[in-house]
Amino acid sequence: MPTSLTRETDVDVLVIGAGPAGLFATNALARAGVNVKVIDQRPVKVAAGQADGIQPRTIEVLQSYGLADKLLKEGNQMHMAAFYNPGPNGGIELTERVADATAPTARFPYEVTLHQGAIESIFLDSLSEMGLGVTRPFVPTSIQLSEDENELKDPQARPVKVILKNLDPLEDEPDTEIIHAKFVIGADGAHSWVRKNFGIAMEGEQTEYIWGVCDFVPETDFPDIRNKSAVHSDNGSCMVIPREGDKVRLYIQMTDRDAVDASTGRVDKSRVGPDKLLEVARKSFAPYTIETPESFDWWTIYIIGQRVASKFSVNERVFIVGDACHTHSPKAGQGMNASMNDSHNLVWKLVHALRGWADISLLKTYELERRKYAQDLINFDKAFSKLFSGKPRSEGNEDGVSHEEFLQAFQTFGGFTTGIGIHYGESAIVHTTHQAASSKLVIGQRVLPHIFVRAADGRPYEIQDLLPADTRFKVLVFTGDSGNKEQRARLDDLATELKGVFSPFAPEGDVTKVFDITSISTAKKEKVNYNDMPALFRSHWSKVFIDDVDSRGIIGGGGYKYYGIDEKDGAIVVVRPDGYVGMVSPFDRASDLKSYFAGFMAKA
Amino acid sequence: MPTSLTRETDVDVLVIGAGPAGLFATNALARAGVNVKVIDQRPVKVAAGQADGIQPRTIEVLQSYGLADKLLKEGNQMHMAAFYNPGPNGGIELTERVADATAPTARFPYEVTLHQGAIESIFLDSLSEMGLGVTRPFVPTSIQLSEDENELKDPQARPVKVILKNLDPLEDEPDTEIIHAKFVIGADGAHSWVRKNFGIAMEGEQTEYIWGVCDFVPETDFPDIRNKSAVHSDNGSCMVIPREGDKVRLYIQMTDRDAVDASTGRVDKSRVGPDKLLEVARKSFAPYTIETPESFDWWTIYIIGQRVASKFSVNERVFIVGDACHTHSPKAGQGMNASMNDSHNLVWKLVHALRGWADISLLKTYELERRKYAQDLINFDKAFSKLFSGKPRSEGNEDGVSHEEFLQAFQTFGGFTTGIGIHYGESAIVHTTHQAASSKLVIGQRVLPHIFVRAADGRPYEIQDLLPADTRFKVLVFTGDSGNKEQRARLDDLATELKGVFSPFAPEGDVTKVFDITSISTAKKEKVNYNDMPALFRSHWSKVFIDDVDSRGIIGGGGYKYYGIDEKDGAIVVVRPDGYVGMVSPFDRASDLKSYFAGFMAKA
Repeated sequence: MPTSLTRETDVDVLVIGAGPAGLFATNALARAGVNVKVIDQRPVKVAAGQADGIQPRTIEVLQSYGLADKLLKEGNQMHMAAFYNPGPNGGIELTERVADATAPTARFPYEVTLHQGAIESIFLDSLSEMGLGVTRPFVPTSIQLSEDENELKDPQARPVKVILKNLDPLEDEPDTEIIHAKFVIGADGAHSWVRKNFGIAMEGEQTEYIWGVCDFVPETDFPDIRNKSAVHSDNGSCMVIPREGDKVRLYIQMTDRDAVDASTGRVDKSRVGPDKLLEVARKSFAPYTIETPESFDWWTIYIIGQRVASKFSVNERVFIVGDACHTHSPKAGQGMNASMNDSHNLVWKLVHALRGWADISLLKTYELERRKYAQDLINFDKAFSKLFSGKPRSEGNEDGVSHEEFLQAFQTFGGFTTGIGIHYGESAIVHTTHQAASSKLVIGQRVLPHIFVRAADGRPYEIQDLLPADTRFKVLVFTGDSGNKEQRARLDDLATELKGVFSPFAPEGDVTKVFDITSISTAKKEKVNYNDMPALFRSHWSKVFIDDVDSRGIIGGGGYKYYGIDEKDGAIVVVRPDGYVGMVSPFDRASDLKSYFAGFMAKA
Repeated sequence: MPTSLTRETDVDVLVIGAGPAGLFATNALARAGVNVKVIDQRPVKVAAGQADGIQPRTIEVLQSYGLADKLLKEGNQMHMAAFYNPGPNGGIELTERVADATAPTARFPYEVTLHQGAIESIFLDSLSEMGLGVTRPFVPTSIQLSEDENELKDPQARPVKVILKNLDPLEDEPDTEIIHAKFVIGADGAHSWVRKNFGIAMEGEQTEYIWGVCDFVPETDFPDIRNKSAVHSDNGSCMVIPREGDKVRLYIQMTDRDAVDASTGRVDKSRVGPDKLLEVARKSFAPYTIETPESFDWWTIYIIGQRVASKFSVNERVFIVGDACHTHSPKAGQGMNASMNDSHNLVWKLVHALRGWADISLLKTYELERRKYAQDLINFDKAFSKLFSGKPRSEGNEDGVSHEEFLQAFQTFGGFTTGIGIHYGESAIVHTTHQAASSKLVIGQRVLPHIFVRAADGRPYEIQDLLPADTRFKVLVFTGDSGNKEQRARLDDLATELKGVFSPFAPEGDVTKVFDITSISTAKKEKVNYNDMPALFRSHWSKVFIDDVDSRGIIGGGGYKYYGIDEKDGAIVVVRPDGYVGMVSPFDRASDLKSYFAGFMAKA
C-alpha cells in the first residue's frame, strides 16, 4: 500500500456513482465533448438482479443517443399484461389480458426487461468507444462548494472541490485524489453521500408493505409466465416480470412480518431466503405450480419507501439525480427510468452552460422539472401500491380491490408506467402561448412519433430519429406546400425573419451549430422538388421532408393533421435538445421565438 | 524471398476469390462450422467503386444470416425511381416518379447502395469474429480432380488437389501451398481461372452497347439526384444511382465508339477519362447542370456481355459461383446479387453433404437451380438493356422507346430487379404436389414476409426472422385452433405421425438438430395457452405463434388468409435452409413429407 500520495485533477463535471443514472449522464456529457470523470465505490459493475425494466419513453430516449439497438436485441419485451384473480374453485384464474403499454402514442409499445448489469454495459461500451471508463473503487470523502458569488455564477469556474479515496490503489499510485470541478452530479443512490453531505432532506414516509423479489428460471404450467402478470389471490399478491432468456422475476407480497427486525423496523435478509419467498408465492399461484429451481439468480426483500428530496441541486453547481432524489416502489418499473431521465434532463443544460451558449440560470429548470415529476410519481406510486397490495374483493371482503378498479388504475396510470406522459410545465424553456398552432403536439411533452418522408429520395423516417440528443435545439418548420408559388413567397419572408432570430445566438455565425433546422412540406412525393425550399430550411438535401405516404403507400402521411397543424398556415415547432417541445409559433409570431431563446440563451 | 518451401493443408472447402460471392460462401460455411479457407490474389480488399447495389431479396437473405443491420445503417436506400424524357423545350423533363422496388411482397421495399468494399467488410467482420480471414495475395497455379468414382461419391474424401502460390511470402514462409479439399468453390470473377481450367465455356455474346460509369459527389440542380433516375434524352441515356453519403453513380451511354480499340474490339480505358464521361452525361441532363467535381471516386467503361457458363460444377466437387458463371449488364443491379445468391443456394447443400445428413446427389440441384436462374436473368437483361439503350420515341423517331413501354418493362421485370421473383422449379428439393394446401405461399419461392405474434408473450415477429440461415430445415405447422378440443386431438395424432417422419433423419435422436419446428395457431392472444400445443410443436415456449394482431392491433393477423391456408384444415410447410418453400403438405398426407426427405436425406 502506498502511504499518502495525492493527485490533483481539474474536470468539467465529476459524476459520483456509476449506476444507470450516473452512467447515463457520463455518456451523454462525454458524447457532447465535455471533460467528465465518473467514480464508483464498487470494484466491478453489478452482475445480476437490481432494477431491470425499461419503459417505452426511456427506449425512445436511449434511441435518441443511438443506444436502443443493443437494448432491444438483448432484452425481453413485455407486450401483454395478464390479470389473475380468485376463481370459483379456490385457486386463481385468468381474468383478462390487455396490452402492457397503455400509451397509444408510444413508439415502442412495450417495456423491455434486462438486468441492470447489461444496461450498464450499454453505457460502458459507449464510453469505452471514446476511451473512457469508470474510475473504481473510489469513494468521495469530502465535498466543498465555494461561497464566492462570482465564482458560482461563472460556468467556467471550478467552485467544487471533492476529495476522493482510492480503495484499492496499485503500488506507487496515489490513494487520494483532489478534484476541482465546474459541476458535480451525485448519482450515488438511495443512501446518497452527496445528498447527506449537503443536508438535503428526504420528504415522505415508509409504507407498511413488505415485498420479496427473486429472479430465476421457472419450471411452471402458469400460462402467463412470459407476460407481465398481476396475481391477486386470497393468499396474497404477486407480480410476474419475464426477463431476458428464460428468466423471470417474481415480486411477492410478504403476508407476515417475519422478515422485519422489530427493534429497528428494518428488513433483515438473514431471516428469510428465496425458498421462503417462493413458498409464499406458491400459495398465490395455486392451482398452477412452480418448481423450486436449482438456483436463484438474485433475490432481495424490502419495505417500500416513498420519498422525494427537498432539493435536487445546491446552487446549481452540485446536482443529485436518480435514487439519490426519489425512492418508491419498484413494481411499476419506475426507478431506473426516472433516474436516467433525470440525467437526460440535466445534461443538455449543463452542456449549454459549459459552452457559454446559455445563461447559468437555465440550470434551475432541472430541479423545477424533475422534482415536480418525482412528486407526481410518488403520488401515483402510493395509489398503485395500495391497490396492488390490497386483498381482492370477494363476498367476504366487500372493501377489497376489484379487478375493474385495478385495471382502470393500470390503464389510467399508463402515462406514468410508460413514461410517455412526462409533461413539463411553463418555464423559461417551455412557452405554451401558441399551443393552438399545433393543437395536438403538446408543448412540454415529447414530440409525438410519426413517419415523414424525405423529399429528395422518398425514404421514410421516424421524426424522433431526426431529433437526436446531440445538444442542439431542433427547429421543425412546417412549411405548408413548398411547391405553391404564393406559399414560397411567404417562406422566403419567413426564412429572412428567422435568420434574424437565430443569428444572434449562432457561434461563429454558424446557425447550424446550435439550431438544427428541418423543413416539412405538404408537397407530394411524385412532384416535390426539394430545391424549392429557402436555403435556411435546407442546409443539406437531407433536411427537407414531406407529409406523405411512403413509396408503397403503407406508412407515413397525415402528419399535419396528427399534430394539429393547419396545412396552409404551417407552424414553427421548437424542440428542446432532450426531445420535448419547448415552444410553437405561427409564422407571423416569429418574434416570439426571439423572446423564447433570449430568455435563457447567451448572445454569441 | 524464400526458395521453394511447401506446405500441405487439408480443408473441407477451399474458396478461390474473396469478392462478394466468395466471402458470402466463406462466411456461411464458417458459421456452419465447416473448415473453410478462402484465398484472393488482391493484397487488400477493394476500396471504392465496383458493384454496389443490393436488392430487396438480398437484404432478406443477409438478414437471415444476421448481417443486414450494418448494411441498412451504412448504405443508401433507393425508394423512388424517376423517369426523364425529352420535353417540349429541347431539354429533359420529369415524366413520372414511381416506387423503385416493384415487388409488393418485399420485406425491405427498396434497394440499398453501398460500395463493394463496405459490403465485403460486412463479411470480413463476421469472419474476423470467428478468428478467420482471407489468405492473400495468393493465386492458384494448378487444380486437379480425382477420377476415382468412389472418392467422388464420398463426401468425406478429398478428391481436389489445388496448388497455391503466395505472391508475397514473408521470409521463411513457404511460397507454395498444396491444398487437399473435399470441395472447391471458384468465386474468381468473370475471367475465372477455375472455370478456364476445367474448360467450361461461356455461352452467349457481347452486345454493341458501350457504357461509362463514374462515382462522385455531384453539385447539381437536377431534382432527382437522390432517386434512381432513368434519363432518356435525344442526346443519349443515363442512369443515376444515388449512393452512401452524398455520392452518386452515373451510368452513361457512350454514343460514339471512341473508347473502343478497333483492332481488338475491346474498350481501352486510356482513350477516355471521367471528365469525358461527364461531358457526355451533361448533354443528356440539359437543362439541368452538373458541375465537374474536384475528384472522382471511381470510374470505368465497358461493353455489356451477356453470357452464362455451360456448367456450374465439375462432378459436384468443384463449383463456380458469381461472375465466374454469368456476366451481364450492371445497370439493373443484378451482378453482386446473383453472385451472393449463388453462394446462398450452394452452401447449405454442401453443409448437409459434409455432415452426412444428405446424399451427395443433393449438390446437383445447385446447377439445376442457379443456371436456370442465370439464363432467365440474361434474357431479362437483354430485353431491359435494349430498351434502356434505345433512343426515346419522338416525332422524328417513331421506332424509339416510349416512356410507357419502358415503365411497363421496369415494373414487369420487378421480380428480377428486386430478386423477389426467384422461383426454383420442381426437383428433389421442391415438391409442388400439394400447392393447394397453401395456395398463396408458392412452393419454390421464398417465404412471404408476414408478422405473427408469439403466443407466450404477445411479441410480434416477422416470420422470416424465425427462419434464420442456420442450415436447418424449418417446419411450420399451421395448426388451426389449438384451443379447440377436437383440433387438439387431431394435432396430437399429427405430432405422433410427424415424429415418425423426422426421427429417422435425426442425429442422436434429436429432431431439433435438423428440423426446426414452429407452430402457428389461429387462437387469439387474449385466450391462447401455449401449453395446449403437442410437445413436438413447442420444444420451447418461444416456438408457438398465433395468427393475430399485436397488442395495439396495428400489425400482424390474417396470415392464414395471406398464405392461402385453411383455418380448419391447417397445413405443414417445409422451408429449405435457404428460406425457399420446399414442400407443403395437408395433415392427412404427412407420409409425403417422408418421401420428400427420403429423396435426398440420409438416415441418421
